[in-house]
Amino acid sequence: MSNPTAAMIVIGEEILSGRTRDANMHYLAGELTRHGIELREARVIGDERGAIVAAVNALREAHDHVFTSGGIGPTHDDITAEAVATAFSLPIAVRDDARALLAAHYAKTGAELNEARLRMARIPEGAVLIENPISAAPGFSLENVHVMAGVPNIFQAMLASLLPRLTGGSPILSQSLRIDRGEGEIAGPLSVLAADYPDLSIGSYPFVRNGAFGADIVIRGTDAGRLDAAMVRLSKLFAPDQA
Amino acid sequence: MSNPTAAMIVIGEEILSGRTRDANMHYLAGELTRHGIELREARVIGDERGAIVAAVNALREAHDHVFTSGGIGPTHDDITAEAVATAFSLPIAVRDDARALLAAHYAKTGAELNEARLRMARIPEGAVLIENPISAAPGFSLENVHVMAGVPNIFQAMLASLLPRLTGGSPILSQSLRIDRGEGEIAGPLSVLAADYPDLSIGSYPFVRNGAFGADIVIRGTDAGRLDAAMVRLSKLFAPDQA
Repeated sequence: MSNPTAAMIVIGEEILSGRTRDANMHYLAGELTRHGIELREARVIGDERGAIVAAVNALREAHDHVFTSGGIGPTHDDITAEAVATAFSLPIAVRDDARALLAAHYAKTGAELNEARLRMARIPEGAVLIENPISAAPGFSLENVHVMAGVPNIFQAMLASLLPRLTGGSPILSQSLRIDRGEGEIAGPLSVLAADYPDLSIGSYPFVRNGAFGADIVIRGTDAGRLDAAMVRLSKLFAPDQA
Repeated sequence: MSNPTAAMIVIGEEILSGRTRDANMHYLAGELTRHGIELREARVIGDERGAIVAAVNALREAHDHVFTSGGIGPTHDDITAEAVATAFSLPIAVRDDARALLAAHYAKTGAELNEARLRMARIPEGAVLIENPISAAPGFSLENVHVMAGVPNIFQAMLASLLPRLTGGSPILSQSLRIDRGEGEIAGPLSVLAADYPDLSIGSYPFVRNGAFGADIVIRGTDAGRLDAAMVRLSKLFAPDQA
């Protein structure tokens, strides 16, 4: 598969402390798969400038796209925009168009555009804004790094604004078969199948349900014909289970 | 806080494709917090030897402990044990004690200890086994890297075997206050509070509920007295909300 590749950086102490269970990674993974972009790696890090700079720089070199979530609000622990500017060695300042978005939003809600809120209009030089239809404060894309909010419904809304302007690849198709036998029973034939279809990704995902072992076999690829052929082989291999 | 630090590596294509939502990271985060070990970073990567070797080597240097989940079953895509051996430049082979665990388990269940299942007895030289009370196939610790299964109930059982032998730090305490005002209203006073308590971690986690903005303020640290003092200050700052 030669689709564009991507990495994600989830920024937030609250995930690492176990207080909150991240939801954005799973959501992004599904959306990228539908868009033909392959998510290859995700990292969860804390609200620490050095950690953010290091992760952004490592991943933007290695992938076509980097998506971040978290740390772009108005409080003292929101340092993502600053850190991304640092990673690119670019200045960051309040930008007029971002300020106008906030001013219009707070004029409607009656809240004051105070100093803390104005921090959310700080945008690294040269970035393109990502629309936030929920709470106005924009995300931004700086080259191939897309900086979005951590609150799940805002993250999802920003991603919906962003995705149409990214070039996707062939949609990644997948088919799966549930087999109610332990992986140890099926591993041998399955590895032969995987070797015969090196252009497909064939994964075995074991489970224990009511004390019985089984596995979901998932075949993924961009060529529907090859996928169908491999699924036919797979079904025949384990046909006795299906009776 | 000078507690031991840790990183996690979640190994599994199925998380990155969006097929499965990872559960082990959130579970580990909570258990480590209770044990006084600080989870500083987590990475999700695919079933690729190079990616596993690189992540293991980067993180075992940087942290006191590295926990991995996934990729230690009997199928062709289970390459974690091999990759960890490669990261340490150590040989890996079927080990007698691991084989005996499998033999005893399959003798009970009536299944055959075939070649595929025997792969789960391959252990890098010098590793200490981690008990698996559910399906017998052990995990292992190699120096500070702890290799465990991806199936959540097996991961949890292995972690329960492992944690008592790791030296924890002071339990990390946390208290939180929900404030039903937008973060922009509270950011100013909150940053003053955070500056006054540099030994505590003070996080603001915004939410949108029924269209209204609010934030959970979470204060974390190991000194109960300092935590109480900061919470009193916090409550007074935003007392009008509590009436």
